[in-house]
Amino acid sequence: MTTPNPVMGPVSPLATERLTLRPLGVDQVVVTGGFFGEWQRRNREVTTPHALSWLERDGSVDNLRRVGDHSRPGPHRGMWFSDSDVYKVLEAIGWDLGRAPSPELDRVVTELTEVLRAAQGADGYLNSYVQAGFEERWENLVMSHELYCMGHLIQAGVAHRRSTGRDELIDVARRAADCAVREFGVQQRKDTDGHPVIETALVELYRQTGERAYLDLAVQLVNVRGFGVLEPKGHFDSVYYQDATPVRQQSTVVGHAVRALYLLAGVVDVYLETGEQALLDSALRQWDSMTATKLYLTGAVGSRFDGESFGDHYELPPDLVYGETCATIASIMVAWRLLLATGESRFADAMERALYNLVAASTSTERDAFFYNNPAQRRTARPAAAAHARQQRAEAPGTRPAWFECACCPPNIMRTVASLGGYVATYSGTGIQINQYLPATVAAGTVRLRVDTTYPVDGAVEVAVESTDGTLWTLGLRVPGWCRGARAVVNGVEVLEQPTARGYLEITRAWRPGDVVTYTMPMPLRVTVPHPAVDAVHGMVAIERGPLVYCFESPDQPDAVDLNRVELRLDRPLTERAGVDLLGQPVVVATVPALARDDAGWNRLGWATLGEEPASGWREVELVAIPYYLWANRGPSVMRIFTPVRHPPEDS
Amino acid sequence: MTTPNPVMGPVSPLATERLTLRPLGVDQVVVTGGFFGEWQRRNREVTTPHALSWLERDGSVDNLRRVGDHSRPGPHRGMWFSDSDVYKVLEAIGWDLGRAPSPELDRVVTELTEVLRAAQGADGYLNSYVQAGFEERWENLVMSHELYCMGHLIQAGVAHRRSTGRDELIDVARRAADCAVREFGVQQRKDTDGHPVIETALVELYRQTGERAYLDLAVQLVNVRGFGVLEPKGHFDSVYYQDATPVRQQSTVVGHAVRALYLLAGVVDVYLETGEQALLDSALRQWDSMTATKLYLTGAVGSRFDGESFGDHYELPPDLVYGETCATIASIMVAWRLLLATGESRFADAMERALYNLVAASTSTERDAFFYNNPAQRRTARPAAAAHARQQRAEAPGTRPAWFECACCPPNIMRTVASLGGYVATYSGTGIQINQYLPATVAAGTVRLRVDTTYPVDGAVEVAVESTDGTLWTLGLRVPGWCRGARAVVNGVEVLEQPTARGYLEITRAWRPGDVVTYTMPMPLRVTVPHPAVDAVHGMVAIERGPLVYCFESPDQPDAVDLNRVELRLDRPLTERAGVDLLGQPVVVATVPALARDDAGWNRLGWATLGEEPASGWREVELVAIPYYLWANRGPSVMRIFTPVRHPPEDS
Repeated sequence: MTTPNPVMGPVSPLATERLTLRPLGVDQVVVTGGFFGEWQRRNREVTTPHALSWLERDGSVDNLRRVGDHSRPGPHRGMWFSDSDVYKVLEAIGWDLGRAPSPELDRVVTELTEVLRAAQGADGYLNSYVQAGFEERWENLVMSHELYCMGHLIQAGVAHRRSTGRDELIDVARRAADCAVREFGVQQRKDTDGHPVIETALVELYRQTGERAYLDLAVQLVNVRGFGVLEPKGHFDSVYYQDATPVRQQSTVVGHAVRALYLLAGVVDVYLETGEQALLDSALRQWDSMTATKLYLTGAVGSRFDGESFGDHYELPPDLVYGETCATIASIMVAWRLLLATGESRFADAMERALYNLVAASTSTERDAFFYNNPAQRRTARPAAAAHARQQRAEAPGTRPAWFECACCPPNIMRTVASLGGYVATYSGTGIQINQYLPATVAAGTVRLRVDTTYPVDGAVEVAVESTDGTLWTLGLRVPGWCRGARAVVNGVEVLEQPTARGYLEITRAWRPGDVVTYTMPMPLRVTVPHPAVDAVHGMVAIERGPLVYCFESPDQPDAVDLNRVELRLDRPLTERAGVDLLGQPVVVATVPALARDDAGWNRLGWATLGEEPASGWREVELVAIPYYLWANRGPSVMRIFTPVRHPPEDS
Repeated sequence: MTTPNPVMGPVSPLATERLTLRPLGVDQVVVTGGFFGEWQRRNREVTTPHALSWLERDGSVDNLRRVGDHSRPGPHRGMWFSDSDVYKVLEAIGWDLGRAPSPELDRVVTELTEVLRAAQGADGYLNSYVQAGFEERWENLVMSHELYCMGHLIQAGVAHRRSTGRDELIDVARRAADCAVREFGVQQRKDTDGHPVIETALVELYRQTGERAYLDLAVQLVNVRGFGVLEPKGHFDSVYYQDATPVRQQSTVVGHAVRALYLLAGVVDVYLETGEQALLDSALRQWDSMTATKLYLTGAVGSRFDGESFGDHYELPPDLVYGETCATIASIMVAWRLLLATGESRFADAMERALYNLVAASTSTERDAFFYNNPAQRRTARPAAAAHARQQRAEAPGTRPAWFECACCPPNIMRTVASLGGYVATYSGTGIQINQYLPATVAAGTVRLRVDTTYPVDGAVEVAVESTDGTLWTLGLRVPGWCRGARAVVNGVEVLEQPTARGYLEITRAWRPGDVVTYTMPMPLRVTVPHPAVDAVHGMVAIERGPLVYCFESPDQPDAVDLNRVELRLDRPLTERAGVDLLGQPVVVATVPALARDDAGWNRLGWATLGEEPASGWREVELVAIPYYLWANRGPSVMRIFTPVRHPPEDS
C-alpha cells in the first residue's frame, strides 16, 4: 500500500523502516459517529469556541498581542507559560481542519497567526513572558518553559501544515525552532528546558521539513538531560525534572508525570528516526515499570499532588490520587509511538483504557467543563465548581470547572480528540490493522474499509471492504487484553486463526469489495483484582466491562446507602441492564449484590484491639455501577471504583 | 491543696471554677529521667544550640536585627513569618529555664530580647517582614501572619515570665499585644489573621497579666472567624483558613491542620475563662470527629499534602500521609485543655499516643534532626537528607533533615519537650492525678510524690508518697484506653476499686509519708484493627504494645524480605524480645510470623480479572517489629505499620 508521507496525523516518521506499523492520517481514517464521533462534533462546536473565549478572558492571547502591539499596555496575565495554551488550541484546530474544512476556523488560525507573527522577534524568538521583560531570555530554563512553549508552537504548526497544506503557522514555528537551534544546537549548550515537549516537537518538525538540524537538536536535548544540568530552584529536585538519571539508564518513570511522559514520547521519536536501540529499550523498560506499578485502572498516572509526580511503585491510593489529565494524554502519546515501533497491541489497549476512562471522565458530557486532576474515589460530595469561573488546578470540586488558572488540560483534551482518527488504524507491508473500534471509514492506498459498531456499548464490530485491489493482504483486528473468546466471521464463515503473539486476530485473503467481517468481542461484566502489592485497594475489587471501568456513584444507589460503608458479595451474580440512557449516552449498567455496613457500634473509635472490635450491622443491598467516565455529571456526588469484598476472593 | 496561680506551665486558667482538673507547673512536676528526661537533657544540650545556630544561619535573627539596626543592610531571608521561629525557640528556652536555671540560656534570652526591643516600633508593632517594607501593616492578614507571629511572641513572653519571674521578654510581648488591641479590639475590626495562634496566646497573656482587654480580643478573634472575613488569595479557600463556618456551628476539623487545631486550643481557652458552653461543645464535637475519622494510629493528623490539611472522613492513606509534626503538637495543646476542662483521661491517652509515636518519631534519637511531615509507610528507601543543610518541608527524605526552609516544626518540638513536666500531673479538690507515666517528682501543696518507672518499656509504675499533711485525699492513676487489667497495690495490699467513668483508678486514703503504690499496666503485644471505613488499610492490622505503635523497618528483617510483599499470620503467636538495646534505647521488639509473598507471576500486570490472577508464591518468615518512633535512624529504609493479614480477622 502506498500512502502519503507525512500523513495527516500527529506522528509521521520519515525513517519508516523501523516502523512495525505505519500510521494513517485523520483524512484517511474518518470517525463517522459513535462516542468519539459525537465528541469530535462537540469538540468543534462547543469546546473550541469555549476555549477561544477563555483564552481571551484569561489574557493568554492578549499577552502575545501586547508584545507585537505596544499601544496595548498591561501586565502579563496568568501563568508564565500561557502561550502554550494558545498553541495547543491552535494544534487542536489544526487537526480539526484536517478532519473537515471550516472557513471560520481558518479565520481563527489566520488571526492568531497574525498575533504571533507580530510578536515574534526578528531572530524568531517568541515568548510573551520573556519578551515582556519578566525573565531573561534562556537564563532560567529550569522554570521558564521557553522551549516548552516553542514545542507546543511547533506541534501546532505541524498540525496545521499537515491538515491544510498552508505554511503561515509552521513558518512562525520554524523561525522559533531556528532560533532554538542557533542558541542550543550551534552553541552546543549543555542545558535544556525544565519541562520537556520540545524533543518530540522538533522530531516532528524534522519529519515535516526534512531539516536535519531539528532532529539533531532533539537528540542533543535528550542526551544532555539526566546529568544534573538544571539547577533545581525551590521545592523540586532533579528527579522532578527527569534530570537525575540519563535516559538510557532510567529504569522507571519518575518525577513530574507530564514531563516524564512528554520526554519519553520524544525519546521514542528519536529512536524511530535514528534507530538507537538503547532509547527504545529504555522506553519499553520505563513503560513496563509504569504500567505494572504506577498506573491506575482508570488510566491515571502520577499519584502525587506533591510535584504532580509519579509515586513509588504500587503507591496508588484512590482517595489522594492526583491523576492529571495531561499526564494520561502524554501516556497516550508514548503508547502510540510504541505501538508503531513494536506492533504490539498492548499499547493500543493502554490507549483505549486511557481514552474511554480517564480522558473521557476528565470532560463533562457537554464537553465544556474539565477535571485537571481526576479523583478515583470521592468520599464526600464536595461543592460544585463555580459557574463560568476559572479554578485553581488542585482539589477537584464536586463538578468540573469551566477553565483553569493553569489551563494546560482542556486544550490537551481538544487536540487529542481532534486528532483521534490518527490513532485508530495502521498499515504495514502485509495489511491493515484496526487498533480502536469506532464507526469510521479507513482508506489505505487502494483499500477502503467501513467500520460499524456501537462499541463500547457492546463488542460487535462490522468491517466492510468497500474497495480493494484484489491482492492478498491481512486484516488485523486487535484482541483487547481484557477480551476472552473474540470471534471473527467473514461473509458468514468463521475464522479459525488464533490471535498472534502481538495481539491481533489476522485474516489474510484476497479481499473483494463487499466482503464483510463480523468481529465479536464478548463483553461480560468482569471483576478486576489489583496487584497484591497495591496496599491502598488491598482486598478490594473493581467492576469492568469491555474497555470501561465502572464506578459506583451516589445518585444511582438505593436510599440511605453510604458508599463508604459497603462491601461487595462475589458469591452472587452481577447482572447487566442494557439499553439504559444515562445523560444522553447509551450505557449498560451493572447491578452488584452487596452488604451495606452499619458502623454505628464503632462510635468514637478510629481503631480497636483485635478481638474487641465493635460488631458492625449488615443489610443486603443491590448497588448500581455505571461507566466511570460519566461520574460527576449530575451534581456533586460520592463515588468509588475499588470496593471491599465481604469475602475476599481467596476465601470465596 | 493550694498551689500558685498562674502555675509555671503552658496553660494556667484564671477562672479555675470550670476546671475539672488543675494544672501543675514544670517546677512542681520535675521529670527526673527515662525517655523524656533524657530527651529534655538533650533538648537543652543538643537541640537548643543547634536551633540557635540555625536561626543565625538562616537569617531569622538577622531579619529582626536589621529592623533595629539600619547599619546592617540586606534582604529579608527565609519565610515571611520567620520571626515566629525565633519566638518558639525563646518559648522553649523559657520553659527550660523553669525546669532548671542556666546563666547561659539567660544570656541568650537577654540578647535576643535586646534585638526585639530594638526592632519593636514605638507603638509596639513588631514584624520584621512588614517593618522591612515587604508588606503593608495589617493589609494582607490572610497571608501575612502578623498576629500569628505576635501570638508566638506572647507565648514566649508568658513562658519566660512564668519560669523566671522576669519581665524583659513579656514586656515586649505586651507592647505588641497592646498594639494589636488598639488595631483590632478598639476599632472592632471584623477580620483576623489567616493563621490562628493569637487566640490562645492572648488568653494566656490575660491569665498572666489580669488585663481583660487581651481576653476580650481573643473572644473577638474567635467570634469573627467563619464568616468569610478573609478574602482567599491564590490556591486556598475559606475552608483552609477555618473561615467558612463559624466555630459554634463547626462539626469537624477542616482545612489546614495546624491552623484548625491552634484555633481550637484558643476556643477551649476562651471557654475556660468565659464559660460559654457552646464553645466547649464545639471543641468536643470537633475533637470526637477528628479522633474517630481523621487521626492516624501514630497520632498524625492532616492527611493531605495539598493545603497541609485534614482530608475527608476516613481518608487516611499511610503512603501519602502528610502528618505535619506541628499539627500533632497542636492536637496535644487541644487535648491538654480538654483534659483540664473535662477530667476525662481519654485526652491524656491522646497526648500519650502523640508524644510517644509521632512527636518522638519526628525527631532523631540524637535530637538534632527532624521530620516536618511524617511518613506512616515507606515503600522504597529514599536518599538520606543532605547533611548540615536545610530542606524544603515536603517529600520527607530517607532520614531527618537538620533544619527546614520553613522551620516551624523543630522549635515546636523543643517547646513541647521543655514544658513536658507541665503535662504530667494534675490536681483537683479531692486529690492528685497522674496522667503520664515517667520518672518524676510531683509537688502539689504539701503533698510530694516520687514516681519511678521504666515506662513505656514496661507498665510497672511505683508512686511513693514523700510528704503529705495527713488529710484524706485521692490518688488518681490514669488507666490508658489500651490497657486491660490494670492493678494497684498500696503497701502490699491490692486495691479493689474499679476505674472511674473518666478513666482513672482512684485510691482514697489518709496517705502517710512512705506509702508506696505499685501500679501495673499489663503491656502485651496487641493487634490493632482499623475502623472498617478506613479503606487505605482495609484488611490490615498494626502491632502495638502499651502506648507504642510498632513498625516493620527493613534493617530488622530477614534477608531478602521485601516489606511491600508480606502478609501477617495471626493464627500464630506474636512473641516479645525484651532487654534489647536499639540505638541506645531499651526496647521490647516483637517477632511476628508472616508469609513473604513472591509476586513474580504477575510480571507486567497491574491487575487481573478475578479467576485469572497469577499465583503468588509464599514462604514462611519471622518479621521483626520495633517501636515506630525509632525508624529512619539507621539510614534510609523501607517501613510500614499497617500490614495485610493473610487470613483476615473475620475468617480466622
